[in-house]
Amino acid sequence: MASSTHDIEEGLAFKPKFDADGLITAVVTDSKSGDLLMVKALWKKGETSGHIQRVIEIRVDCDQDVVWLKVDQQGAGACHTGRRSCFYRAVPLGKAGTVTLEFRDADKKFDPEAVYKK
Amino acid sequence: MASSTHDIEEGLAFKPKFDADGLITAVVTDSKSGDLLMVKALWKKGETSGHIQRVIEIRVDCDQDVVWLKVDQQGAGACHTGRRSCFYRAVPLGKAGTVTLEFRDADKKFDPEAVYKK
Repeated sequence: MASSTHDIEEGLAFKPKFDADGLITAVVTDSKSGDLLMVKALWKKGETSGHIQRVIEIRVDCDQDVVWLKVDQQGAGACHTGRRSCFYRAVPLGKAGTVTLEFRDADKKFDPEAVYKK
Repeated sequence: MASSTHDIEEGLAFKPKFDADGLITAVVTDSKSGDLLMVKALWKKGETSGHIQRVIEIRVDCDQDVVWLKVDQQGAGACHTGRRSCFYRAVPLGKAGTVTLEFRDADKKFDPEAVYKK
């Protein structure tokens, strides 16, 4: 039987809403700084990653289609480009016309060429 | 011409990757606390919401299919259930068997029945 909206939103049963491909969106933040490290799709049965992240806390959102992992990022970087976070470019605010991104906290913590051998 | 992975990841051109429905995932965090407030799909042409959130910074992730909005949450709560954040339940760690969620920071900041009149 399908759960009611009230059950999903107010209940204590964990009923993650995987999509048609068996995926759910997972938002990963640094447990200390609060910085967003990455957003990825998690397989129902788990995913193997080269990055070591100790999970401090897991939360689920109101309609249970997103999980939030607060982690202790123990590797050099969470992003496959070598950065600590995947969010290393800012979209400038209040500018008209063509948008040119600006690098922020974009220094590389590891060499992706060396880590992801071709 | 399609952009190369290198252009998307290392370039300064903002090329948000909307999905087939013209949507992109947007992660909204509190600019002060770093807390995750909500994750939603943004329409290409914008979405109207009853919640007032002043955008402090916008970042885009490596493959440009997620945007991160750091906001100053000016309304009572970001979640339609009345809470400050949509992530008001934790998934307990290290327990086997049926998972029972635990409420965290789950007090209601406004009455959703009054705000979203039926």
